Amino acid sequence: MERAILEGVVKLLEDGVPLAELSIERVARTAGVGKATIYRRWSGKEELFVDVVRAAEPPDPVLPGTSMRDDLVVLLESLRQRGLASRSSAILHNVYAQMKSSPKIWAAYHASVIAPRRALALDVLRRARQRGELRADVDLELANDMFIGPMLVRSVMRPDDDLPEGLAEQIVDTVLEGLRPVSSTAS
Amino acid sequence: MERAILEGVVKLLEDGVPLAELSIERVARTAGVGKATIYRRWSGKEELFVDVVRAAEPPDPVLPGTSMRDDLVVLLESLRQRGLASRSSAILHNVYAQMKSSPKIWAAYHASVIAPRRALALDVLRRARQRGELRADVDLELANDMFIGPMLVRSVMRPDDDLPEGLAEQIVDTVLEGLRPVSSTAS
Repeated sequence: MERAILEGVVKLLEDGVPLAELSIERVARTAGVGKATIYRRWSGKEELFVDVVRAAEPPDPVLPGTSMRDDLVVLLESLRQRGLASRSSAILHNVYAQMKSSPKIWAAYHASVIAPRRALALDVLRRARQRGELRADVDLELANDMFIGPMLVRSVMRPDDDLPEGLAEQIVDTVLEGLRPVSSTAS
Repeated sequence: MERAILEGVVKLLEDGVPLAELSIERVARTAGVGKATIYRRWSGKEELFVDVVRAAEPPDPVLPGTSMRDDLVVLLESLRQRGLASRSSAILHNVYAQMKSSPKIWAAYHASVIAPRRALALDVLRRARQRGELRADVDLELANDMFIGPMLVRSVMRPDDDLPEGLAEQIVDTVLEGLRPVSSTAS
């Protein structure tokens, strides 16, 4: 039943129905269920819609936990996979764009998808700093943005950019190492 | 004359007219000029609109040229200033959001504003690498994304985030230094 409803929304999106016109009533009609059935599972259009996006996105990554570097590579690789998915899936591409112009849906997506991912990454960094794998004087939020920033700039802000295999490793290792010449005597 | 036309567009935007409905005809009427006058200066709505945004944005930075670090701080500080401007100016905020859903206007803005800024930054990095201020083995595009990524994530993708004074310096210095503990013996 849940599946039929999610597929009903995807069908409407594929038919080009804009997010703003996607009412619970219309979804119910398309899925062949009553509105009450939808409201038993989702409190509103925003929550339903976030689940549609989650179902279309690659699943959240499982961290190996072997080292900060390995965990970060897996986290960044999942950002790369989502970038690739949004390039190859017209639905996802279209949906991300529309979500941002709907503050309520964006807030729901942020709370249920982005915020937990961010918390997971900050947790990896916090534990790594305790173990001495990360400079002790670095702000964790800044460190997180240093890892995810280069990937997000390419995957989200420059949709024509390449997202080559190995990019996650390259970013993590370069951010850890820094950009100063190794032999530099600069302070 | 040019000024009256740009102000006419701003007035329409302030009145809440959506970008899609902002025709040259309507701009001409608002500014009290003929359509031909507008077409003598701009080839179309896209070019006119990009000039409106440029007039509302902080001006492009002048690089001191004293070191890569100084140039990068100035470049990142100008990103920070644009982020602050888009938070305090309802017009800019609204306009950035609408631009992204209009591929033609976004392409025009990209070609006349973003691409030259990016070229400028890559130039700074290329010269620095030649002078030995930047690791020789680092990809310049990646290096650029490492500097601008953390600032753009905060200024563009998380509009509620703080953009404190000193953030440009903090990002540049931390990216140069890297995140590994200084005493680390990890390879």
